[in-house]
Amino acid sequence: MNYRAIFRFIALTLLIVAGLMIPALAISVIRHETASLHAFSGVIVGVGAVCLPVYLKTPPKSIRAREGYITVALAWILVSLVGCLPFFISGAIPNFMDAFFESISGFTTTGASILVNINVMPKSLLYWRSFTHWIGGMGVLVFLLALAPSTGDSMFLMRAESPGPQVSKLVPKTRQSARILYIIYIGLTVLEFLLLWPDEKVGAFTALNIAISTAGTGGFAVNNAGLAGCSPYVQWVVTVFMLLFAVNFGIYYLMIMRSFRRASRNEELRLYAGIVLFAVITVTISVLPRYRGEFWTALRHASFQTATVISTTGFATADFNTWPTYAKIVLFLLMFIGGCAGSTGGGSKVSRVLILFRSVKLSLRKLLHPNNVSKVHMDGEAVPENTVAFVHVFYGAYFVILGISVLLVSLDGFSLETTLSSVVACLNNVGPGFDSVGPMGNYHHLSALSKAVLSLDMLLGRLEIFPVLMLLLPENWRRMHALPSAKAK
Amino acid sequence: MNYRAIFRFIALTLLIVAGLMIPALAISVIRHETASLHAFSGVIVGVGAVCLPVYLKTPPKSIRAREGYITVALAWILVSLVGCLPFFISGAIPNFMDAFFESISGFTTTGASILVNINVMPKSLLYWRSFTHWIGGMGVLVFLLALAPSTGDSMFLMRAESPGPQVSKLVPKTRQSARILYIIYIGLTVLEFLLLWPDEKVGAFTALNIAISTAGTGGFAVNNAGLAGCSPYVQWVVTVFMLLFAVNFGIYYLMIMRSFRRASRNEELRLYAGIVLFAVITVTISVLPRYRGEFWTALRHASFQTATVISTTGFATADFNTWPTYAKIVLFLLMFIGGCAGSTGGGSKVSRVLILFRSVKLSLRKLLHPNNVSKVHMDGEAVPENTVAFVHVFYGAYFVILGISVLLVSLDGFSLETTLSSVVACLNNVGPGFDSVGPMGNYHHLSALSKAVLSLDMLLGRLEIFPVLMLLLPENWRRMHALPSAKAK
Repeated sequence: MNYRAIFRFIALTLLIVAGLMIPALAISVIRHETASLHAFSGVIVGVGAVCLPVYLKTPPKSIRAREGYITVALAWILVSLVGCLPFFISGAIPNFMDAFFESISGFTTTGASILVNINVMPKSLLYWRSFTHWIGGMGVLVFLLALAPSTGDSMFLMRAESPGPQVSKLVPKTRQSARILYIIYIGLTVLEFLLLWPDEKVGAFTALNIAISTAGTGGFAVNNAGLAGCSPYVQWVVTVFMLLFAVNFGIYYLMIMRSFRRASRNEELRLYAGIVLFAVITVTISVLPRYRGEFWTALRHASFQTATVISTTGFATADFNTWPTYAKIVLFLLMFIGGCAGSTGGGSKVSRVLILFRSVKLSLRKLLHPNNVSKVHMDGEAVPENTVAFVHVFYGAYFVILGISVLLVSLDGFSLETTLSSVVACLNNVGPGFDSVGPMGNYHHLSALSKAVLSLDMLLGRLEIFPVLMLLLPENWRRMHALPSAKAK
Repeated sequence: MNYRAIFRFIALTLLIVAGLMIPALAISVIRHETASLHAFSGVIVGVGAVCLPVYLKTPPKSIRAREGYITVALAWILVSLVGCLPFFISGAIPNFMDAFFESISGFTTTGASILVNINVMPKSLLYWRSFTHWIGGMGVLVFLLALAPSTGDSMFLMRAESPGPQVSKLVPKTRQSARILYIIYIGLTVLEFLLLWPDEKVGAFTALNIAISTAGTGGFAVNNAGLAGCSPYVQWVVTVFMLLFAVNFGIYYLMIMRSFRRASRNEELRLYAGIVLFAVITVTISVLPRYRGEFWTALRHASFQTATVISTTGFATADFNTWPTYAKIVLFLLMFIGGCAGSTGGGSKVSRVLILFRSVKLSLRKLLHPNNVSKVHMDGEAVPENTVAFVHVFYGAYFVILGISVLLVSLDGFSLETTLSSVVACLNNVGPGFDSVGPMGNYHHLSALSKAVLSLDMLLGRLEIFPVLMLLLPENWRRMHALPSAKAK
């Protein structure tokens, strides 16, 4: 294992995160929020003092598969640790586990919160909280790759951090791909901000926060009422953008390149659109009586809640916890599906569901014809068998992790609904679940053990399991002691 | 497709089931239960009149993979249809969907019931109801294979009906293997009966019913109080036998053959024992306060409920629906695991869980070393890659079916707990779930649609998904029209 390369990358990542705190620091200066000002400046100086020497003294080295996974997993844990310090040091969240939970919930774009009263939080911290969604949405290492000079085969890093069963670079160069992704990301975020800003009840600060939170499909709100207190116009705009941010960014690149036909034929996009349509229509019918037959109100709430759950954002305009069982089950199932590969959405990804479906069908054929050599196809191309196998392993690990997490959270003794849905909502980076962790509820009442388990689930969900499991693989730690590190087994 | 072979097998199967109704007919004669007497004799005569000519006129032909799956799936549906007729014709269960639900719940050894008052049911029907568990436990086609003269490569039939990721015959001949299985099955059933009979509150009829119901890991009781009304002695005996019937019968064969070392080294058995121990200990601690600190009472109920759920029997001595969340979650997770391969237990099987765990670990290694060619091992031998792949596909299909079923059942509008647990309890052939379908509840209040969905789930669970899905594979029906039938694709 090449520890130097890992240290260098992590140091650089933390420096960037500290740099990204500067706007929040500026807000604390402008608004005279002394506690946050001290906290932000302290963290920025501290990270700089520790990480800058490490970064400068370590020569650049290329990263291989093993280091890629370990780097990404460790970087995310350390970024969340550094990111929670402003909350903790400023005293806004006096409990360290709570501050860490809030921070990792932000970076993983989950949006599960332990804050009971958001209205009393300093604005600079609220901005930082929303901004963690934006940083985590596209990926902090992808950001680094977009900035940094070429560092050998950095594709391993991008693969470990990017969502979906297979990661294809938009253009041959990793750095160029990362830049295109960030340009699209910034463009869509700015567009949403400009559409929200004019609304009289919103204003620049809230519009900015909603926009960056939507972009990362995070879901932290900047006041207690959240999106429920906004106008139907704002709710519709956010609905559309939540859905847009859960689409594979490659589709937007195709559209920019004027390959509209290829974009529209994308099978994952079609399935995603189909699922959204099905959910919106049937949930609207299901909740129509709750809204006394007011079709447009029912449609708006059904659309918003469908969009917020499938994109795994986690905003809410209605307490879907009190909705009819059918509507709740639809939303519950959407949590597992999530957004498209290569988007900022969480969940297990639409393309994985598609590959799973097709591989089950293909396997039935293979039971009948053992010599059948046909393969799973997507977008007219054969999906490599390795990718299909990893989709299966992903779901296997996913449900094992779900089971173990539920068992640990159940020790708290909350209801079955709270226990199950808290794990599902965190592992899929959605945020709100049902019952006491529902859209009108919160995660503050859970024990420190549950918060730790759910924090790990959020990380497992955001990094799609494997990089985090790599940290737990004994051989990666045995090697720490056994030199030379390149020993092949 | 060789329809003649399918018809012949199904006709024979139905004849055997009609023949197996004779003891129930005898009970109805002895107890002067006129309605049941007419129903049983009518069904026996009717099935004989239809199936005997079909069987006699069709020449024997060997069965290939495709026909094996289709035969098993169709046979189980028709057996359940024939098996429900005594309930329906006698008027004991006047609603046909209910009668079918009760019958398929019996044959699939689920034990989910729509009966609100068991005490008023005629004894002959109660006996038939328990006996369906016994028939379904080991498999009606395995029974046929044990009886019938050699019919070519009938291994396909056994493979389609026997539980577990890989089916190995105990001895080279299918017929001999089927016989050994049934001898062990009968031996254990008789032993349990003899142990229960002496209990003063039980008596011969109840002891027989409990024994055959335990043997198939079914769970139908013969009175409203069920096992909760029995003595601690009876409850302990049933606990032990539930656990025994969920062990791979191959282990008992090894023990008969005096290969104790091989039996004790079986990795599935060890994991099964470990899970049972873990569950019993932690659930006992969890429920201890409910039993005012009475350790032995808590241990008895914890052991019984653990055994009933992991063996997927479904008896109950305590309303685990009111237990602490931790205990409920343990039982909920045990439902997914179920018994060992080659036992009468349901669920996804301990060996599948084991293979899943090991393949996830192996896949992590393969991410690091793409050229790694090592395989998943069990009991010191490499598991064929095909088997591992099918374990993955099994779980994929399993969770997709779970999701679709939950969506359909949610239309009834019962609680999330009822909706989720009814599907989980039926798909895993457990029987009772939580809330209104809990151990003190029942399935009678569900809609006909939900009962149909859950009936299909029970069948999917018992036949381990693939044979039933084969019925839904379009190409198996396209071929019906496209002659010649043997066209290879």
